[in-house]
Amino acid sequence: MTESGKKSPMPSCIKDGWFSEIEPMWPGQKLSIALEGFSSDAILYNESSEFQKILVFKSAQHGNVLVLDGVIQLTENDEFVYQETITHLPMMAHENPKNVLIVGGGDGAVLREVCRHKSVEQITLVEIDQKVIDVAKEYFAESTAIAFDDSRLTIVNQDAAEFLEKQNASDRKGYDVIIADTSDPVGPAESLFDPSFYEQMYEALNDGGIVCAQSECFWTQPELIENIFACSSDIYDAVEYASTYVPTFPCGQIGFLLAGKGNGLDLTKPARPMTNELKHQLQWYTAEMHSASFVLPKFLEDRLGLLRPTDEDYEDVEENDASEDCFLKGCVIS
Amino acid sequence: MTESGKKSPMPSCIKDGWFSEIEPMWPGQKLSIALEGFSSDAILYNESSEFQKILVFKSAQHGNVLVLDGVIQLTENDEFVYQETITHLPMMAHENPKNVLIVGGGDGAVLREVCRHKSVEQITLVEIDQKVIDVAKEYFAESTAIAFDDSRLTIVNQDAAEFLEKQNASDRKGYDVIIADTSDPVGPAESLFDPSFYEQMYEALNDGGIVCAQSECFWTQPELIENIFACSSDIYDAVEYASTYVPTFPCGQIGFLLAGKGNGLDLTKPARPMTNELKHQLQWYTAEMHSASFVLPKFLEDRLGLLRPTDEDYEDVEENDASEDCFLKGCVIS
Repeated sequence: MTESGKKSPMPSCIKDGWFSEIEPMWPGQKLSIALEGFSSDAILYNESSEFQKILVFKSAQHGNVLVLDGVIQLTENDEFVYQETITHLPMMAHENPKNVLIVGGGDGAVLREVCRHKSVEQITLVEIDQKVIDVAKEYFAESTAIAFDDSRLTIVNQDAAEFLEKQNASDRKGYDVIIADTSDPVGPAESLFDPSFYEQMYEALNDGGIVCAQSECFWTQPELIENIFACSSDIYDAVEYASTYVPTFPCGQIGFLLAGKGNGLDLTKPARPMTNELKHQLQWYTAEMHSASFVLPKFLEDRLGLLRPTDEDYEDVEENDASEDCFLKGCVIS
Repeated sequence: MTESGKKSPMPSCIKDGWFSEIEPMWPGQKLSIALEGFSSDAILYNESSEFQKILVFKSAQHGNVLVLDGVIQLTENDEFVYQETITHLPMMAHENPKNVLIVGGGDGAVLREVCRHKSVEQITLVEIDQKVIDVAKEYFAESTAIAFDDSRLTIVNQDAAEFLEKQNASDRKGYDVIIADTSDPVGPAESLFDPSFYEQMYEALNDGGIVCAQSECFWTQPELIENIFACSSDIYDAVEYASTYVPTFPCGQIGFLLAGKGNGLDLTKPARPMTNELKHQLQWYTAEMHSASFVLPKFLEDRLGLLRPTDEDYEDVEENDASEDCFLKGCVIS
């Protein structure tokens, strides 16, 4: 491990005062973000952890920016959209979430959103890379990393697939909500895009429990989304896909797989009213936005609509195994 | 006028085989699109008309791309989202649109969408720059420019504000739907972001008529949107704001002002069922997407919600004048 905060030479993704995101997952396009003052002095952190390259810079217009392996994870100015959506969709679709698992989420922002729910008694955050948490605490101390001292929190530094496999083999109580706040399916998050991980999450849920997983962009990864959706429909009793706007993500769009355990779940509507306190804390999510997030473009609805599990599927669900290795089949990233 | 299709030297927005969109309206960020083969051979057209710089290039991943004054107007791969949204929101919110005015729209794509409605008897397209139409016919002949030979169409090359002022002074019959498919409020479209133009459009509508106007990005221009919305609420009897995803527009998002003339209009729902033929022609728009497009993020709903006209306003609407020069007040672009 290297000393936290030590500045390293200019990374290759920064040139002439601009950071550019070039990635084979979205060929032929790149978003660039200006560094403050177009100066390398705005690079706050630039080191490799055991798992990935971590870069933090102060931008001209977007606040501090966190980049992992060359891919923008968040900017302080717009991160609220992603965090509120991935968190409050499953939390509000559940009637009374008490025990919550966050997979990844080392920047602390999903944790911040989960902590806003008073019903929650226990939060487990399984982040493989402690360095991401350390960096967030130092450079995002007033934005994303404000809830790491919550008394309900337990942090585990482990691959989440291994963690769940061991936990499922034990008698520990299950989760009401699992939020898979992962990076893209290359690098340290690869195991979290495997069908077996979706089976482990299903097993780890209480009855009535809900998973919400970061599930890529419908412009760049429609095959991946279709594969995740199809496999999840074999495993879970209710499966939906939601979408939201994130201006500094590729194509300005990101989607989420929502999947539930138990009969009669409607993931597309809040299961209860929001408290006034929660309403005032949020900038993006509303009850109306919850439902609207699940309305998909016709081209995507045409691909996913027929794959949704039906009530008949529910009877057989214990018998089904998702076919292995199907998520990445036919995808650009495979 | 210069010879159509003649290649000019490499423009400054193209470097190392990438086109980059740098604009003061969205400081600190830029989207870049790769040219096919990263080669200047992929520049298909690069000339200035009487009104603006027109650039067309063949991209590596996005089809042909139309750029006006350095700003991406459309890529062939994703243009359907913008065109279907700006067209079918007002067309489907109207019970029986017969006479349609398209303001701008020289690329032909809104025209293509309007022509899909069998109820339409007359279409007037007022495009200030004939060169854009000529270029579209040559380089977007199989995508956007496929309906210029529709027998219902009349093309007028004039500033739309002047056109409407003259027409309103005459006795010509009004429009059921006006679609203002403008570029940004700098350059030739500036007069189309003036409150007086919104008054002219109101006057030009039949009772029950609906305007839909390109109204910028809620990430970069929230003040402009608030100003347009407030002024329109003084002029029109129903006003709403809709949003959609366009991956190659700034921040991947664009919004539309919808405004209606007459009492009891609900712009947020289709007024009639779609024909099966229309359903099969579209890739983005559905009845569900219509309503979902009007669900706004909390931060924007908080700004716009109280500005909506109420039924009480309807009685007084003829008496009100929108305050002049308010649209651009406080905006980055002013």
